[in-house]
Amino acid sequence: MADFENIATEQFVEFYYKAFDSDRASLAALYGQDSMLTFEASPLQGVGNIIQKLQDLPFKQVQHQVATLDAQPSDERGGILVVVSGALLVEEERRPMSYAQTFQLKPRDGSYYVFNDVFRLVYPAA
Amino acid sequence: MADFENIATEQFVEFYYKAFDSDRASLAALYGQDSMLTFEASPLQGVGNIIQKLQDLPFKQVQHQVATLDAQPSDERGGILVVVSGALLVEEERRPMSYAQTFQLKPRDGSYYVFNDVFRLVYPAA
Repeated sequence: MADFENIATEQFVEFYYKAFDSDRASLAALYGQDSMLTFEASPLQGVGNIIQKLQDLPFKQVQHQVATLDAQPSDERGGILVVVSGALLVEEERRPMSYAQTFQLKPRDGSYYVFNDVFRLVYPAA
Repeated sequence: MADFENIATEQFVEFYYKAFDSDRASLAALYGQDSMLTFEASPLQGVGNIIQKLQDLPFKQVQHQVATLDAQPSDERGGILVVVSGALLVEEERRPMSYAQTFQLKPRDGSYYVFNDVFRLVYPAA
């Protein structure tokens, strides 16, 4: 894919997890009224519901560490599919957990917002 | 999301992995000339290149087991974002590996084809 899309994607992912780990409410700037989040199978729609869900998660401290990042154009109108895998550590756990998160970014006002967001913890295969 | 989309997604995922595990060449029916696959960071485009890559993978026997399946509408034109996590077992390994695979399905001829496909093994967090 084009360099521009790679740079946009890397910047987005860095910004997203810094915001998530420091001030979840600030993620509101990255969603819109038509955004969708499926968080561990719970479906939510709209920036208000999504931010409420993220703020209600039962931990205060969290740290994401990105392991892999893949991106592809998702349509002819500037959308980008972004797939992240990595580890996250929450305050009450000593061991990090693996996760996979898929975003579809769509253009908005010269930048991007999150249209699709699917988050899943990935457990070690038995 | 609508029941129709859920059913379409489940049927797609079941069909996809059955085909992958029994006859990878038959997956050609699910891709098109503009399809993209990023397989463990290797980017490929077009049904011919994608099927060649899948057939060249260094194992003959493989078995996918789906653990989670999430779907969201990806646009207003009938696209569906599908995120799968699961385990796969290849012939030379005794232990299954975790994977995450993201598809964007787009409508074609009354059915769907894979426009985006991103595959990653997910390793246990250290």
